[in-house]
Amino acid sequence: MAIETQNARKYRLTVSCPDTYGIVAAVTQFLATHRGWISEAHQFADPETCTFFMRYEILADSLPFDLDVLKNKFEPIAEAFNMTWQITDASVKKRVVLMVSKEAHCLSDLLYRWRSGDMDFEIPCVLSNHEDLRSYVEWHGIPFIYLPVDQADKEPHFRAVREQIAAAQADAIVLARYMQILPEELCDLYPSRIINIHHSFLPSFIGARPYHQAAVRGVKQIGATCHYVTSELDAGPIIEQDVHRVTHHNTTTDMVRIGKDVEKAVLARGLRCHLEDRVLVHGNKTVVFA
Amino acid sequence: MAIETQNARKYRLTVSCPDTYGIVAAVTQFLATHRGWISEAHQFADPETCTFFMRYEILADSLPFDLDVLKNKFEPIAEAFNMTWQITDASVKKRVVLMVSKEAHCLSDLLYRWRSGDMDFEIPCVLSNHEDLRSYVEWHGIPFIYLPVDQADKEPHFRAVREQIAAAQADAIVLARYMQILPEELCDLYPSRIINIHHSFLPSFIGARPYHQAAVRGVKQIGATCHYVTSELDAGPIIEQDVHRVTHHNTTTDMVRIGKDVEKAVLARGLRCHLEDRVLVHGNKTVVFA
Amino acid sequence: MAIETQNARKYRLTVSCPDTYGIVAAVTQFLATHRGWISEAHQFADPETCTFFMRYEILADSLPFDLDVLKNKFEPIAEAFNMTWQITDASVKKRVVLMVSKEAHCLSDLLYRWRSGDMDFEIPCVLSNHEDLRSYVEWHGIPFIYLPVDQADKEPHFRAVREQIAAAQADAIVLARYMQILPEELCDLYPSRIINIHHSFLPSFIGARPYHQAAVRGVKQIGATCHYVTSELDAGPIIEQDVHRVTHHNTTTDMVRIGKDVEKAVLARGLRCHLEDRVLVHGNKTVVFA
Amino acid sequence: MAIETQNARKYRLTVSCPDTYGIVAAVTQFLATHRGWISEAHQFADPETCTFFMRYEILADSLPFDLDVLKNKFEPIAEAFNMTWQITDASVKKRVVLMVSKEAHCLSDLLYRWRSGDMDFEIPCVLSNHEDLRSYVEWHGIPFIYLPVDQADKEPHFRAVREQIAAAQADAIVLARYMQILPEELCDLYPSRIINIHHSFLPSFIGARPYHQAAVRGVKQIGATCHYVTSELDAGPIIEQDVHRVTHHNTTTDMVRIGKDVEKAVLARGLRCHLEDRVLVHGNKTVVFA
Repeated sequence: MAIETQNARKYRLTVSCPDTYGIVAAVTQFLATHRGWISEAHQFADPETCTFFMRYEILADSLPFDLDVLKNKFEPIAEAFNMTWQITDASVKKRVVLMVSKEAHCLSDLLYRWRSGDMDFEIPCVLSNHEDLRSYVEWHGIPFIYLPVDQADKEPHFRAVREQIAAAQADAIVLARYMQILPEELCDLYPSRIINIHHSFLPSFIGARPYHQAAVRGVKQIGATCHYVTSELDAGPIIEQDVHRVTHHNTTTDMVRIGKDVEKAVLARGLRCHLEDRVLVHGNKTVVFA
Repeated sequence: MAIETQNARKYRLTVSCPDTYGIVAAVTQFLATHRGWISEAHQFADPETCTFFMRYEILADSLPFDLDVLKNKFEPIAEAFNMTWQITDASVKKRVVLMVSKEAHCLSDLLYRWRSGDMDFEIPCVLSNHEDLRSYVEWHGIPFIYLPVDQADKEPHFRAVREQIAAAQADAIVLARYMQILPEELCDLYPSRIINIHHSFLPSFIGARPYHQAAVRGVKQIGATCHYVTSELDAGPIIEQDVHRVTHHNTTTDMVRIGKDVEKAVLARGLRCHLEDRVLVHGNKTVVFA
Repeated sequence: MAIETQNARKYRLTVSCPDTYGIVAAVTQFLATHRGWISEAHQFADPETCTFFMRYEILADSLPFDLDVLKNKFEPIAEAFNMTWQITDASVKKRVVLMVSKEAHCLSDLLYRWRSGDMDFEIPCVLSNHEDLRSYVEWHGIPFIYLPVDQADKEPHFRAVREQIAAAQADAIVLARYMQILPEELCDLYPSRIINIHHSFLPSFIGARPYHQAAVRGVKQIGATCHYVTSELDAGPIIEQDVHRVTHHNTTTDMVRIGKDVEKAVLARGLRCHLEDRVLVHGNKTVVFA
Repeated sequence: MAIETQNARKYRLTVSCPDTYGIVAAVTQFLATHRGWISEAHQFADPETCTFFMRYEILADSLPFDLDVLKNKFEPIAEAFNMTWQITDASVKKRVVLMVSKEAHCLSDLLYRWRSGDMDFEIPCVLSNHEDLRSYVEWHGIPFIYLPVDQADKEPHFRAVREQIAAAQADAIVLARYMQILPEELCDLYPSRIINIHHSFLPSFIGARPYHQAAVRGVKQIGATCHYVTSELDAGPIIEQDVHRVTHHNTTTDMVRIGKDVEKAVLARGLRCHLEDRVLVHGNKTVVFA
């Protein structure tokens, strides 16, 4: 059986539900009946919470009907197993609003991945509380929207942010070193859709100036954490983390510089997983089918 | 549904077959019919060879029959899909013959894992062409069998090795820095069951004295490779690899020392996967469901 | 100039002092005058505290006098620059008391390194609050001293510990998963000489059950930290750290198992640096000339 | 003594010479005499070739004379010890010609580092055998010079390359995925100044399509190597290497994608060391004082 799977259009099914007998059997029996071709499959049964997770990629053209019909036909199975689920069309690019401040390392890396096709997403706009990165963003043909912050009253800023995100019909919001704490109500509006890159190996060094804290503590590795934003600061579900070795030679300034490379790599890996529907949130933890 | 899965007795089903529709459906439908509880599931469809691989862990006590009946009942499914397959009882420890020379780092690490229960296997005997490690092995209550090598005629040595392995009813043979090249016929007797730790990041530095070669080339990382032994030297399917950074400060002697730590870690990880039936060999490559 | 340096007897000079002009000039001029051969040299000037650190290895037989004379002759230079300094004879093995509880992974690894010569030190005795590891230690010909802990009154235990350490003339004490918090006065008796392996990437997860804490937080890497013990719990100067990736597949039990491999590797690397006088403590941080 | 060293102007002295007594003493005595302030110092005595290497950073304003006088005054010391040496002014940015083909990942990363000040160098021009990257380069205000390759006769191309490099007064040439093999005479013109990023963990997979080779061999980690170009293909002195884990899930296409991230990181680290005069070449190996 020779089927071209690598470049074919795919649907992505993700499921979380209480673990029990026959979940996979029901799903795969359903797909096999319609000769749906599964090109990638991941399952995980969490023994501690007795929860079942799955993510399947299915070749769209192997099915004799379209996405809406697929969803309709899947609905009874989902109900039978009390599933939290979604099916997305992988060819529909997610709309990602980038929020930045003055630092360009994460933005620059993401824009390279966007324009080269390394990662597949749309950027309806870049929002910033500073003008510094306007020219670079606009060279890419992407709208750059300057939303200043009045330190005495941040409310107008965040209202504008909320409006722009809504207008952009964002599927995800990436805080690419945005450097402002989002208000609780904004966090709650987009659960598991706002992605932050924190410049420490959480839960170490929560809050401001983590590299300064790391230098004071004398750690031998510094890290970065990509996580979903919740209303509790730096406490949301972790998607991805990594570290880089430092030595006594490295001053706080060096750590900031070294850390930027870790940050941009970790953010890119985390965002890629999110874009490909590989991250399933469960409580304050994530299942990442990478 | 609260089922204790972490410490329960399990069967392990592994399958390789041509990829097609309905494989998972057939397997899971069969299990669900008998209320077999899947505690861990991995699948992989290789798009380049159109081959399908799967590994399931099933709670033994969730099934209403024993292993032999399970195999019998599974047979028709296996035939229908032209599967290469096996089902093992995870509670039956594999019998692993260790072969060593003079170096103790891998042996010592594996014996710690054996006696502490960190890894679950039996050691019917340790074979060696030197007496150096006898006392340490025997303290563990494990037979140490000295099989000297006559450099002018190695045939008697390897005949004795073959006999001991057969007598030990070995499921796997681990060359824990054994330092002799096995004859082709011995390699062919135990396909995908002889595990070697090579002290380089293969395919770099095939053959003798890899750290010396690495020092001459001036590499910045040295590595180790755990692979199945085939009759072609250092060319068998790779199970696991890792590297460690070195600098100009590190002499060849240092590289040997640093390398030992990488070797023992890589061998232990590779062997663990083998013991847990996580490694499926396909041509000269492996699928490792870790 | 062909001098055999790798296996020659060496002195190790370590220095910390306020940074200023001419420190290296004074030291090296002194050595050159006596034709002292420097086989390894590290210096570091900390720009944040304006402190200077150095570590030199000098071939003992290149000097026309012995260690005592060397120290006497060096004294005036040390005074001129207000140095904290020491010169040790690398051929004199450090005496290291190991303290353990029930877990064998770190002990087993260190004993392998000791008996194979991978690391160069003496073990006058192993102290433990449990009998579990007696047989293994005694096979090595090392005294195993059982010092039980009365949970209602730990004072007798720690008095016995203090006496044994004193009797052993310990240069260093290694808490190889000893699992008891040392009393402040014991910590203060041996500054920068008690080495602990903590099973988390400090400062994350201070205190008890760090893997449990890590599992709850959903981190994607777990780590271990080798540090000098001070009277403040888990807050002493960090010598070495490392991490290992975990995924959602890894339960708390898995993390404990994976973590043990990180722990023993980190402890071994940290202890090696300590044994070779490569760790200079400065405030709550370390300079490690590795 | 409180001296601001982090942002001060510095000279960089690098030395290679036969190892003997008194080298450091002579150099530091000379500097101390003129109250030259050493802000960073590295030395290395290679026991295998009995060669001595050093790299010092000296605060320019601590000396009572300028760079030319410094060089003149240092000359006698250099002659006495038969040194290969140089002293550079760290504030004079190196001129780096970038050579690219169609792939943008390394170029994009280097241009970010250039424009953000993350790395300190000048780019007189970018040379390419394709037009693809013109617009992106020119947005940065950097000349983009298109030099097409006639596959039937590459000589005119390389003559043009040679002329452009000469006209640019290049201190270094970076082959940022240039994908053409430079002719021997061009390699010989710029020893230890042409830097290539090779997309494998050398010496594995020399030559074309290394990721394809890696996929066929079934390796578990893929890597990249930053090295100086010599006339022997992929065999020049290695500056920096790193690897990234891959699994059976990763197709050749995935490896190319993952590899790009390793390549750009390794090239950036290698180039940084080169720009800061941290790489001393000795035979076919490097001493990297990082």
